[in-house]
Parts: sequence; C-alpha cells; structure tokens
Amino acid sequence: MRDLTRDDIEALAIGAAIFGTGGGGDPYIDTLRCLEMIDGGARIPLIELAELEDEACVYSVGGVGAPGVSIEKLEQGEENLRALHAVEREVGRRADCLIAGEIGGANALGPIITAAQAGIGLVDGDGMGRAFPEMQMTTFSIYGQSSVPAAIADDKGNVVVFRNVVDELTFERLTRACVVEMGGTAGSVTAPMTGRYVKRVAVPATVSRAISLGRIVLEANLRHEDPVPLICRAERGTHLLDGKIVDLQRSFRGGFAVGEIVIEGSGVHKGDRARILFQNEFLLFSRNDAPEVTVPDLIVVVDIDSGHAIATESLRFGQRVAVLSLPCDPLLRSPEALAVVGPAAFRLAGVEYRPTV
Amino acid sequence: MRDLTRDDIEALAIGAAIFGTGGGGDPYIDTLRCLEMIDGGARIPLIELAELEDEACVYSVGGVGAPGVSIEKLEQGEENLRALHAVEREVGRRADCLIAGEIGGANALGPIITAAQAGIGLVDGDGMGRAFPEMQMTTFSIYGQSSVPAAIADDKGNVVVFRNVVDELTFERLTRACVVEMGGTAGSVTAPMTGRYVKRVAVPATVSRAISLGRIVLEANLRHEDPVPLICRAERGTHLLDGKIVDLQRSFRGGFAVGEIVIEGSGVHKGDRARILFQNEFLLFSRNDAPEVTVPDLIVVVDIDSGHAIATESLRFGQRVAVLSLPCDPLLRSPEALAVVGPAAFRLAGVEYRPTV
Repeated sequence: MRDLTRDDIEALAIGAAIFGTGGGGDPYIDTLRCLEMIDGGARIPLIELAELEDEACVYSVGGVGAPGVSIEKLEQGEENLRALHAVEREVGRRADCLIAGEIGGANALGPIITAAQAGIGLVDGDGMGRAFPEMQMTTFSIYGQSSVPAAIADDKGNVVVFRNVVDELTFERLTRACVVEMGGTAGSVTAPMTGRYVKRVAVPATVSRAISLGRIVLEANLRHEDPVPLICRAERGTHLLDGKIVDLQRSFRGGFAVGEIVIEGSGVHKGDRARILFQNEFLLFSRNDAPEVTVPDLIVVVDIDSGHAIATESLRFGQRVAVLSLPCDPLLRSPEALAVVGPAAFRLAGVEYRPTV
Repeated sequence: MRDLTRDDIEALAIGAAIFGTGGGGDPYIDTLRCLEMIDGGARIPLIELAELEDEACVYSVGGVGAPGVSIEKLEQGEENLRALHAVEREVGRRADCLIAGEIGGANALGPIITAAQAGIGLVDGDGMGRAFPEMQMTTFSIYGQSSVPAAIADDKGNVVVFRNVVDELTFERLTRACVVEMGGTAGSVTAPMTGRYVKRVAVPATVSRAISLGRIVLEANLRHEDPVPLICRAERGTHLLDGKIVDLQRSFRGGFAVGEIVIEGSGVHKGDRARILFQNEFLLFSRNDAPEVTVPDLIVVVDIDSGHAIATESLRFGQRVAVLSLPCDPLLRSPEALAVVGPAAFRLAGVEYRPTV
C-alpha cells in the first residue's frame, strides 16, 4: 500500500487513456481535480489486491454515458460520491475501499476523487483492464456478482436507485434510459463486493500498470523517442498500422457515441485501408475489409508523434495516427466473458474473436 | 367508512372509464381481480376524506405507461404492491391507507387491489378527478408535495427507486424512460403524504362519484334509456356532439399513445366536423377547426347507444359515438394547476383554457 502522488496522477491520465481504447472519457478535468486534491493534502492509498482483506466491503465506481458529452457538460464533482452514499444507505454498509469499474480514461481518475472524498483507499485493479460501454461488461458482473442494488447520480442532484433487476442486461437498459434523460452522463456505483471476490475476479494491478505506461510515454516524449514500440513492449502489444484518418462518422445514439473511422496507411503500411468501428470504445479493426482485431482485445489509436491516445470523441479528419492492439486480460477471454464482451455481444455479425497474442 | 362491494366494483369500472377521458387503462382485468378478491373475502374500506386522520400516512398509487400496452402485456398483479414496499422501505414508514393517483380507467381499480393486498383502506378521492398522462399532473404534486422518494415496479420483478429529483418534470422524464424500457407499463407509488395534506388537495369523493356514475349508466341500460343526458346531469356535463369516427391516427411515441380522431356529426350535429387530440387522454376538442373544450376539463367519448366510455386505445374507424365534456374540479383551475395540466402544458399552441361550466 502506498499513497498516490502528483507524478502518479499525471502518468495515470496518459496510461489510462491508452487502456481506454478510445473511451472512458477525457481525463483532463479529473486529472486537474486529483492534482488539486493531492496539493490540498488528500491522501489516497493504493491498495494491492494481495493486501485486500477478504471481508472488506468494496464498491465499484465509475462514470456512465457517452464520453463526448462530458467535454461540454462538466461534472458537478460529487456524482460518484452521491451514488456511493445511495448504495451504502441501500445495503446498510459503508465502503472500506473503492475499485474502478473500468481503468479507461476519466474512469481511472474519477474513483480516485471519490475515494479521497470518502476518505478511503482505492484498489489497484479494475473490472475490465480497459474501458467498455455497457454496465454489465465488467468481470465483477461476468463472474456472478449482481450489479444491484446500484445507484446513479447526475450533476443536478437527481439520484436513481436500481433496487431489483431481473438480469444484468436489464440493469444496463434501465441505467442507460435514465442517463440519457440526465443529459448523457452520470456517476454510478454498483453493489458491494467482498475483498475475497475482488481478489478473484478483478483485473489485477491496472492502476499501477497504467501509471507505468504513462511514464513510458512521458519519458519517450522527453527523449524525443518514438513511444509506440515502447508501449507495445510494455503491454505485449502489436503495432498494427500508421496512417491518416480519411473518413469519420460519429453520432450520439441510444446514449452512446457510435461510428467508424477509415485510415489510409502510410510508410510501410502504404496501400492499406483500415476501418475501425466504435461504440464509445473501439470495437473492431479491419484491414482491407478483413477483420483483424476485435473486442475484448484493446484497439488503441495514438497520435503518431506523441504516442498519446486519441479518444473516439477527439478523432478528426486528417489526423496522423498509429494503431496498436494490446491483449486483454485472460479474465476476458473465457467463454462466459466472451458472451458479454466479445464480438457477438456488440452485434458484430460474422466476426470471430481471435486473440491477438 | 364502508367496505366496497361487488356492485360498487362493477359500477366503478364504468364510471372510472368515463372519468378516464380516454385514458387510465382498460379496467377489465382489474375489475375481474377486484371481484375475485371480494368473493374471496377481502375487505377494502373506503375512507371518506372527512374521516381521514391528520397524521395518517397516505401513499398515492397508480399504473404508469401507455394504456394500450396493458391490453396485450398483462400485469403480473403485484407491481403496485412492490412499488409500495419499495417506498415504504425508503422512507421507513408503513402506509396507513392508499389513495389513487388518478380515478380514470384501470387506475381507479388498481389501488383497490393494492389496498386489499396490503390489508389497508382506500381514500375516497384521487389526485386528478380524471386521468392525465404524466406523473407531475396530480393535485398532490401541483400543490407542493414532492413525488419522491417514489418507486416503479414492473411485471418481471424490476424495481427502480427515485430517491432525489430536482423537480417534478425530471421525475416524469426519468420515470417515463424507465417505463419504456420496462415494456411500456409499470406500477408506481409516490412519496407519502399526511392525511391533513390529502384532505386539503385531493379531489374529493371521486371513488363514490365514479360508482354513482356507473350505476346511472347501468340502470339506464336496463331501462333502455339514453344514458348521455343522465351522465351530463349527474356531473354537470355538456353533450357536445353525436357522430361517427371518420379518421383515426394513433401511435406509441415516447411511452405514450398519441394521436387524433375526426368525427363527422350526425342528427342535430349534421355538418359539424370535430377533431379530438389525445396523449393517452383526450386533450382538445375542436369543432369546425375552432377549439371548444381543452384540458383540464374532461372530454369523454362514449358509445352512442350504451353510454360506455371508449378509451383512446379502443377507438375504431366507423364507431358511432357521443362526445361529452365534464367540468374538472376547481382544484385544477387555479393558475398553478393550469401551468401543469392546462393546454400550454400539453404544447397546444394558441389554445386558451376556457372553463366549460
């Protein structure tokens, strides 16, 4: 156990954006808020899975909605905390510590703020090892923990509690319907888990891995070195393509940012034409119309020079990008996980999941 | 205080359909269920407003959704009860008695079933004196009682609690979004009220008035007498038009049944062409393109022979109908009420409310 530092936060923002695979929300505002809290004396212990007590009461925290919305609709700042208090009251048990539902983008930083507000620690791990768009897409839910009672809270003060749901997909649908009415984003907290369960099903050490990854990018930038091969080496990734975005379609549909980009290859990839579909996060990378990488493996689009990840809401025509794939955690490759986060779960017809590494 | 009888229930179904002004849901199934419960020995005391204790804890109960849906999607039977238990748990106070949110259609009978299930009585009154499509459209809400904490429950076992909302319109929007995901109908219970408050703002005696009105129709049918003038006499109504439905548009939009009918006048009204807009309930009656009756006054379409009300979901091309207007309760005619249930609240541009009587 150690306390998160300023340097950790700055690196985490960069690493979490990479793990965000296009989603998770822009970490800029939450990074500033974390730094301000640390500067103000907040201590946020990062708890390794091995240190977690079996009987600890752990709540999973994260923002829900379309990532692009949060750029224009600023958070009030206590959405997650209000959702946490609502679920704590519902189950009659205070949180001993928090864990991020997803380590991607802003959702890596939001739970740190919530932990500081609640005066408790954050577990070094998460429920995805990446970002996914829907509520049921966590290892917590996949391996048998019900997400309810859960609560969502918006920036204006609305709090909705999901007391009983018949299944996790219904929980997702009800949550999404409310989040759309709330303006497209909300804080959410799901049912508490025991430390024992979290140790078994959380994707391990993803906070510290995201911090390390961010450091690698920052240091490469300082040395004017290409960060892409370093990212690949650190996370056993594959450098898929360099190129330029030549087409971009994006819309806000059903509460999600959905669309696709087309990238024309350059350099050694000249002549290649790649297409990436997304629903908040990147779902499918195809080259010359042949599927190559799909969920749950991570498809990462980075600025070709800086190696900083580009979120789906920041994609622009003409951007010069590198595309990487990173292998997902083995916990996402089981048959029960693939049923929830594999290509079929995203209605990618005729696409099979073939592990990248 | 007296117990509701079989005869009461049969008459109530007919009277409540008239007060439903096209909405409130088809009372057929709930009538059978009420009769079955009474046959099985259930006692449901009907409590006059004057008998209600100031400190009584009164919950308002009713179905929410599009009335047409409930014809094909049968209720499970304990939706309202589960919603009641959820709110009781939320506020830590058991109900002393229930009151119908609206006296229209099935929503006059559902609260009787819930009262029998909970073993408590029903107040003789409601929050509308008719039916309205949206959650905030009750005298309870209009005169200052917050609807939350509230809960909705569906036929499958899903229960959503609205713990905090910033205003009543937000409560309506969040509820509606969930109800649409629940399949279009749900049971709902809103925050408890004191007996003192209910005595001040409930539309009085609407259960017994609906029973009387139903009896008038039943007895006229037995005597082969025209019930329309008798309905008008009992409720100070106006016989607007006899005619035939010559056009009908209806769709399920945003969780509501919305549309319009065109009626060609017959008999003394020959040459008249009337149009009635609806959103679950009838909103506006125009004759020869001139608005004549609007919400909150009641527009009632009845079968021209039997005097039985025709709900918006049962309107058919070619039906021969009589159209009546009944004055709404004075509680709905105040400026604060008209802001919530008047023509402007239904976006009826350029239409002013002019009381019918």
